Amino acid sequence: MTPQRVTLITLGVDDLARSKAFYAALGWTPHPSPAEEVVFYQIHGAVLGLFGRDALAKDQGREGATLGTGATTLAQNFATQAEVDQAYAQAVAAGATALKAPEKVFWGGYSGYYADPDGHVWELAMNPFWPLAEDGSLTLPEQA
Amino acid sequence: MTPQRVTLITLGVDDLARSKAFYAALGWTPHPSPAEEVVFYQIHGAVLGLFGRDALAKDQGREGATLGTGATTLAQNFATQAEVDQAYAQAVAAGATALKAPEKVFWGGYSGYYADPDGHVWELAMNPFWPLAEDGSLTLPEQA
Repeated sequence: MTPQRVTLITLGVDDLARSKAFYAALGWTPHPSPAEEVVFYQIHGAVLGLFGRDALAKDQGREGATLGTGATTLAQNFATQAEVDQAYAQAVAAGATALKAPEKVFWGGYSGYYADPDGHVWELAMNPFWPLAEDGSLTLPEQA
Repeated sequence: MTPQRVTLITLGVDDLARSKAFYAALGWTPHPSPAEEVVFYQIHGAVLGLFGRDALAKDQGREGATLGTGATTLAQNFATQAEVDQAYAQAVAAGATALKAPEKVFWGGYSGYYADPDGHVWELAMNPFWPLAEDGSLTLPEQA
């Protein structure tokens, strides 16, 4: 009834142009769309969208609510520490708020965190136990 | 440098057992993992994880911070309105907070929202312009 899947991740933002510029600075290409009030990016097997935060609250059926960020983090996994460092530097150069510079972490990998202009938290990680497929997708190994 | 992808979505939760029970009631199957402080679910080409909210704040390099929810929504797309209604009813029966019962929306689809036990917002939607692949993945059409 409820499939184990996520087909769309929507980030509520205060200034769509600012957010679009931020993700453009990371090298992301928006999908051509006839709608001006939303931006969509194709990700692996799913879509990431940017939408006005107030409009999102209204869409959720709670107009005027203050929507929070931080407790939902989005991670990008990489094959090497160097790639993590590069992506982290690129994000900070694009105006991200540095939260934690990439470092070796207790679970045996390498990870850093930044927040986008609206406080949406991204993790950049290299997990030696989670190899990525050639297309960049991630399938959990038999023994996680 | 920064690939257009999301390989891991982590939800910070206050009570891992409660959250695990909620997602089990939706029919989700956790991946076997040797770690007790985290729960992973395989989703299409990526992973969704549950992790203690305080531990997540610490991991992000801001121990003691209060992490918010709501501005990042996760959506599940379906092929029919009936499937949306069924999944919504299942979530509410499992203890979700109803935010907006599924209804026809301005962009031509059908959508509802609920919040999980920690306030993470899920959208359930049928978008006639976004057909799903047989494997449940979503690729944006040429003209969105």
